[in-house]
Amino acid sequence: MPANATARSAEPGPRARSLGLGWGTLPPGPRNAITDVPGVRVGHRTLHRGDAIRTGVTAILPQDGNLFHAKVPAASQVLNGFGKSIGLMQVDELGQLETPILLTNTFGVAACAEALIRDAIAGEPRIGRDLSTVNPVVLECNDGYLNDIQAMAVTPEDAAAALAAARAAADGGMASGAVGAGTGMSCFGLKGGIGTASRRLGIGQEAFCLGALVLANFGAAGDLRLPDGRRVAEPDVPVPERGSVIVVLATDIPLEHRQLRRIAARAGTGIAWTGSFWGHGSGDIALAFSTAGRLPHEGDAFLPRRVLAESRMDQVFRAAAEATAEAVMDALAAADTTMGFRGHCRRSLREVLAPR
Amino acid sequence: MPANATARSAEPGPRARSLGLGWGTLPPGPRNAITDVPGVRVGHRTLHRGDAIRTGVTAILPQDGNLFHAKVPAASQVLNGFGKSIGLMQVDELGQLETPILLTNTFGVAACAEALIRDAIAGEPRIGRDLSTVNPVVLECNDGYLNDIQAMAVTPEDAAAALAAARAAADGGMASGAVGAGTGMSCFGLKGGIGTASRRLGIGQEAFCLGALVLANFGAAGDLRLPDGRRVAEPDVPVPERGSVIVVLATDIPLEHRQLRRIAARAGTGIAWTGSFWGHGSGDIALAFSTAGRLPHEGDAFLPRRVLAESRMDQVFRAAAEATAEAVMDALAAADTTMGFRGHCRRSLREVLAPR
Amino acid sequence: MPANATARSAEPGPRARSLGLGWGTLPPGPRNAITDVPGVRVGHRTLHRGDAIRTGVTAILPQDGNLFHAKVPAASQVLNGFGKSIGLMQVDELGQLETPILLTNTFGVAACAEALIRDAIAGEPRIGRDLSTVNPVVLECNDGYLNDIQAMAVTPEDAAAALAAARAAADGGMASGAVGAGTGMSCFGLKGGIGTASRRLGIGQEAFCLGALVLANFGAAGDLRLPDGRRVAEPDVPVPERGSVIVVLATDIPLEHRQLRRIAARAGTGIAWTGSFWGHGSGDIALAFSTAGRLPHEGDAFLPRRVLAESRMDQVFRAAAEATAEAVMDALAAADTTMGFRGHCRRSLREVLAPR
Amino acid sequence: MPANATARSAEPGPRARSLGLGWGTLPPGPRNAITDVPGVRVGHRTLHRGDAIRTGVTAILPQDGNLFHAKVPAASQVLNGFGKSIGLMQVDELGQLETPILLTNTFGVAACAEALIRDAIAGEPRIGRDLSTVNPVVLECNDGYLNDIQAMAVTPEDAAAALAAARAAADGGMASGAVGAGTGMSCFGLKGGIGTASRRLGIGQEAFCLGALVLANFGAAGDLRLPDGRRVAEPDVPVPERGSVIVVLATDIPLEHRQLRRIAARAGTGIAWTGSFWGHGSGDIALAFSTAGRLPHEGDAFLPRRVLAESRMDQVFRAAAEATAEAVMDALAAADTTMGFRGHCRRSLREVLAPR
Repeated sequence: MPANATARSAEPGPRARSLGLGWGTLPPGPRNAITDVPGVRVGHRTLHRGDAIRTGVTAILPQDGNLFHAKVPAASQVLNGFGKSIGLMQVDELGQLETPILLTNTFGVAACAEALIRDAIAGEPRIGRDLSTVNPVVLECNDGYLNDIQAMAVTPEDAAAALAAARAAADGGMASGAVGAGTGMSCFGLKGGIGTASRRLGIGQEAFCLGALVLANFGAAGDLRLPDGRRVAEPDVPVPERGSVIVVLATDIPLEHRQLRRIAARAGTGIAWTGSFWGHGSGDIALAFSTAGRLPHEGDAFLPRRVLAESRMDQVFRAAAEATAEAVMDALAAADTTMGFRGHCRRSLREVLAPR
Repeated sequence: MPANATARSAEPGPRARSLGLGWGTLPPGPRNAITDVPGVRVGHRTLHRGDAIRTGVTAILPQDGNLFHAKVPAASQVLNGFGKSIGLMQVDELGQLETPILLTNTFGVAACAEALIRDAIAGEPRIGRDLSTVNPVVLECNDGYLNDIQAMAVTPEDAAAALAAARAAADGGMASGAVGAGTGMSCFGLKGGIGTASRRLGIGQEAFCLGALVLANFGAAGDLRLPDGRRVAEPDVPVPERGSVIVVLATDIPLEHRQLRRIAARAGTGIAWTGSFWGHGSGDIALAFSTAGRLPHEGDAFLPRRVLAESRMDQVFRAAAEATAEAVMDALAAADTTMGFRGHCRRSLREVLAPR
Repeated sequence: MPANATARSAEPGPRARSLGLGWGTLPPGPRNAITDVPGVRVGHRTLHRGDAIRTGVTAILPQDGNLFHAKVPAASQVLNGFGKSIGLMQVDELGQLETPILLTNTFGVAACAEALIRDAIAGEPRIGRDLSTVNPVVLECNDGYLNDIQAMAVTPEDAAAALAAARAAADGGMASGAVGAGTGMSCFGLKGGIGTASRRLGIGQEAFCLGALVLANFGAAGDLRLPDGRRVAEPDVPVPERGSVIVVLATDIPLEHRQLRRIAARAGTGIAWTGSFWGHGSGDIALAFSTAGRLPHEGDAFLPRRVLAESRMDQVFRAAAEATAEAVMDALAAADTTMGFRGHCRRSLREVLAPR
Repeated sequence: MPANATARSAEPGPRARSLGLGWGTLPPGPRNAITDVPGVRVGHRTLHRGDAIRTGVTAILPQDGNLFHAKVPAASQVLNGFGKSIGLMQVDELGQLETPILLTNTFGVAACAEALIRDAIAGEPRIGRDLSTVNPVVLECNDGYLNDIQAMAVTPEDAAAALAAARAAADGGMASGAVGAGTGMSCFGLKGGIGTASRRLGIGQEAFCLGALVLANFGAAGDLRLPDGRRVAEPDVPVPERGSVIVVLATDIPLEHRQLRRIAARAGTGIAWTGSFWGHGSGDIALAFSTAGRLPHEGDAFLPRRVLAESRMDQVFRAAAEATAEAVMDALAAADTTMGFRGHCRRSLREVLAPR
C-alpha cells in the first residue's frame, strides 16, 4: 500500500446507537453490523490523497470459499435508476451472486469490474475458457463534491486491496464512516459514507440475523429526519443533490430470489424513513443476498432447498427497513468532517448536533 | 338510492391540517385535495347497512368529456403486489387511462369493472363492436375487519352511483374519512378510509398542482408516525394486518408515461414516511395521471406533446411524497370511530389523540 | 345447461399432428396436451347461441384438492400488455396460484372473477372473514369479430359450469378448437380457439412433462407460418387485428418463481415462431405453473423445496417454445369454420389448406 | 493502429439479400443498414492477432454533435439477462442515451466503459465536476470459443479507435460480418458477427426509417431457420451454447420511452423467427433509440415533443422484427470462416449452404 493511500480512519468513529440514533424495535446483533451474518466480511480501501482525492473501494464478501462454484441467492431492486452499477441484470435473471460486491465512486466501476474478473479467474482459471464467464457486481455513488472524480483515482489494484482487506477481516469487525467507498460521500448535506446495522430474528425455533450496509450519499440538505422525528438542517449547504445510496442486505434466512427481491424493496422504505423521497438525481439501489442454500455452478440436476414460508415475511421486512434506516444513521454518526476537492467541506452530523 | 344505503357521512370530518397533521413544506392547493387539479372530480357511494356492511365505492373522474376518446396519460407502480386490482397492465403498456378510476373492497372489483364497461359503452356504443374494447381500472383494499366482505355487497349499481356522484360534484368538493370505498377500512389499527391533499408547484413561469387521494387501509398498530415524529400506539388492537393502500396521484403538469411512473414510485416514500414498511399482506399500489395532453383514441399519425424537462422532477417528487403522506393523515383525521362486522371496532385517531 | 347453450363441438376436431403440423424435435406426451401433466384438468363451457353469441369459458384446474390451502408455484410474463386480465399482479408478488385459471372473452372477466371468488369461498368458508381474501386469475381475449361482446353473454354460472366440467374430466381428455373460451376467437385471419400440446423431458433419471394450452386469437392475416416454413395467406380477410393470445404452461418439474417466469417468457418465442411479432393491439400473456411443491396457506415457518438446477433450463425452454407453437397449430387444426356476429366468418385452416 | 491489429476484413462480405436471405415484406432502406437512419454512424476496431485473439469493438454513434448536451430518447429490453452490459439501468430510468453505444466481448466492458467516460469528458470537461457524471453504455457477448477472452485484449485505446472509426464514417457505409465486436462471435454453430438491415416506413405523409444492428452470437447448432423455412444443421459442432445477442434499433420516428421499449421487445420476435428460443446461457438484450427530439442536458422547464400515435405502432413493430431477423441473416451471410483460440473453427454459412 503506497504511503499516501490512507492516512486516516485508524480511529473508528462512534456508532449510531452511541449517539442515540438507533432505529426501530427489533434487537440488533452483537456487532450491530452486516458482519453479524455468519461468514459475511467487509474490507475497505480508502484513498485520501492531497487536496482532491477523497474516494475508495469497499468490498463485501458474501461468504468464504469459491463464490463462482458456490454462489449465493441474491436479488436487486432499483428504487431510482439514475446510477451506473454493473452486474444487477444477471443477478436478477439467475437469482445469484458469484463474486464479492464492490462499492466505489461512479467512475471507478470499470476498474473494480476488471479487478473482480481477475480475482475470479485467479480462483478458477477455467473461467471464460472451459467454463462460462463471470458476472462482476459493482455498485457506485457519485462523490464528486468532495472528490475529483475526473481523476479516476481508483485502480484495479485498489479494488484488489479492498478484497484482500475483506478476506483478512476474520474477526467480523468492520469500520463505518468516511472509509472505503464512503470516503468522499455526502448525505443530507452532511458528511456521509459507510454505515451498517443488523437485526436479530427468531423464526420458528431458530435464530437468524439480517444485516444492512449502506453507502450513504443521498438526501437534500434539511430533509434529514432522525429516529425521534427531529429534522436536521445544515442551512449553509449548497443546493444540488447528485447523490445516490447503495443498500446491501445480507441474511442467513433461507429465501428464494423472489423473496429477496421483496426484502430489497423494503430498503427503500428504510431510506424514506430517514427523510428521503428518492431524489431524481440519486441512483438508489438495493441488493439482498442470503447465505443459506449456496448454489453450485454445475452439478446435480436438482437442488434441495428450504425457504421461508411467505406468511413469515413481515418481520423480515421490518428488520430490513430498520437496519437500513439505522445504517444511514450509522454512516452519519461515524463520519468525520471532511474537506476535499476545491476546498469543499461536509460537516459531521456530530458537529452539527453538538450544542453550540 | 335505497333508504338503508347511507345513513352517515353527512357531516364531513375535520381535515389533517386542522389537527396539525399537515406534512412537509410545499404549499397546498385551495382545497388541499386531489380536486384542486382542474377537472378532477371525486364521488362516493357509501354502504353502511345493518351491523355487517361497511363498504362502498369511490369514483375518481380524471377529466370531463369522453375518456375513451380523449384518454389521459397515466402510469402505475406496484409497491407490494398482494392485491387484486384490474386494469393496470394495460395502463402501463399504453401509458393511458380511458375510464374513471374506481376504488372499492377486494370482492367488489368485478362489480365495479362491469359498471365501468357499461358506462363506457353508454358513452360510445361502438366499443367492442366497431372499435376496440375498453380497459376498466378498479383498485381495491380488503375491508374484511369491519365489513362482511363475503356478502359481496357492492353491485354494479353502487359503482354507477359513485360515478354519478363524481359527475355531479361540479364544485370540486369531496369528502374524506369513512366514506365511499373508505367506509370500512383500517389504518395502523385505527379507523382509516379516504384521505386527500394537494401541493402547488411553480415551474418556469407557470403554476401547477399535484393532488393525492388515498384509500388508507394499511399499517400495523403502533407503527403510525405523525409529522412531528410522534408514534401513535393503539395497544388493544388485534395483530394481523391484511391491509393495502391505494394512492392515486393527479397533476396538470405535462408528463410522459415514464415520468408518471417515477412520480408514482414516490407515493411509496410518502407511505413509508407515515411509518409503514409496505407490509407483506398489503397490496400497495400507486397510480398517477396527468390531465395535460389528452390522447385521442384515433386520429392523426403524430401527436404534439409537451413534457417536463427531467431536471425539474425533484420538486414534483417532493410534492408527490408530501401529498401522499398528508393524505394518509387526512384519512385518519377525518374518519370517525366505526363499529362493524362481528362487533369489530376501529377507533378514530382523534379519539386516540384526545387527552384522556 | 340450457338447451341452446352448446349445440356443437361434440365431435372433436383433428389435432395438429394429424395434419402434419407438429412443431420441433422433443417428444410429445401421451395425449400431446396440457392434461399430460399429472393432475391438470381442463373443462369448457361453450356459448354458441343464435347468430351473435360465439363465446365461452375454459377452466384449467392446476391440481386437485383445495388450491387455497395447497397453492401451486406460478409466474407470469406480459409479452404485450394490451389486455384486461385479473390476478397476475399477485401471482408475481407471491409466486403462487390459489384458484383455477379461467379463460374467457374480454368483457367476461368480471363474471369469471366473481365465480372464482364464490368457488373459493365454497371450498373454504373462512376466506375473507377469518382468513385473507383470495386472488382469482382470469385471462381473456377479444372475440368481438365473431361474437357480440357487448352482449356480455358470459355469466358466473357459465364460469361455474366450466369449472364443473374441468372437475368432471377425470380421464385427462380435453377438446381443442372452437370450444370454451375459443368459440369465437380468430387467429391469423382464420378460425382460432383453444389448442394444446405437450413435451416429455428426461432430467437426471426422472421423467417430466411440460404442457401448453393456448387461447389463440392473434396474428395478422398472411403472417401465419407453418412448421415447414409455408406462409398461409387468407387474402379476403379484413385487416384490423384486435387479437390477443393467452398461453398457459404447466409442468411437474420442481421450479421456483423466477424459473417459471423465465419459462413463461419462452412462450413468447413459440408465438413468434408461428409468424407473430406480438402486435400492438394484442394482449399477449403467458402464465406458467408447476405442480411440484405445493405451498400451504399457513403452516410451518420453513418449507422444504426442490428446484431444478439453472444449468438444466435450456431443455425446458425448448419444450416451452415447442409446445406453445404446436398448441397454436393445434387450435388452428381443430377449429371449424365459424360464422357469427353480423354474418362475420372465419374459415378453418383445414379448409384453406385443402386442395381447391 | 499496431500492424498486427487487423489483418482482415478489408473485403466486405456479401450481404444477406445477395444470398436470398432477405426477411419479410417491408422495403429496405438504400443501404439496408442501420446507417440508413440519418446521422447514425458505425465504426469497428477489429483485433485479429496470432492464433488466439479474435475480438474487437463496434461503436454506434446515435447522432453527431455532443450527445451529453443533446441526448437521444432510448429504451432497452432484457430478453434474457444472462449478460454483463453496463448502462441500461439509467437508460430506462431517464429514457435517454448520452454516449455512443459500444459493443465488445464480455471481459472488454470495463475498458470500453472507461473509454466512453474519457470521451465524454473530452467533449465536456465539466462532467463530474460542475455537472453530473455520465452514463456509458456498453453491451457484450462472450466470444470465448474463438477468442481467448481471458487475455482481456480489448483496451480503452481500442474502444477509442472504434469511436474514431465511427466518427470518420461520414458516408454512412459500414461493414458486416466478422468485424469489430463480431470478430470472434458464433451463431447457431456457424460464424456469427455483426449484421445489419433497415426498413422504410411511410407514416402519414412522411418517410421514416428503422434500422437494426446485431451482434449475433446466439443459437444452438441445428436451430437456425432461414427465411424460406429451411433448417440449417452443422452437425459437427460441439454442443454448449454460451452465446448472447445484442440488438440495437435506431429510427428517426419521434417516439417516447415507453414506445421505444415496446419496439425493443419486438427485436425478441425477430430473434425468435431465426429459430432461437432465447437460450438460458444467452444474454439477449435489445436497445432502441430515436434520433428525433433530442433532449438537452439542461435548459427550459418544458420540452416540445412530437410522438407517434399509439395506433400506428404495428408497422413499426413489424419493421423492428423484420430488420432484426434480416440483420442476423446478414451477420451469417457476411462472416467468413474463422479459426481461432485452441484451433477452434466456425464455418461460414455460405460454405455450409454451398453445394458440396
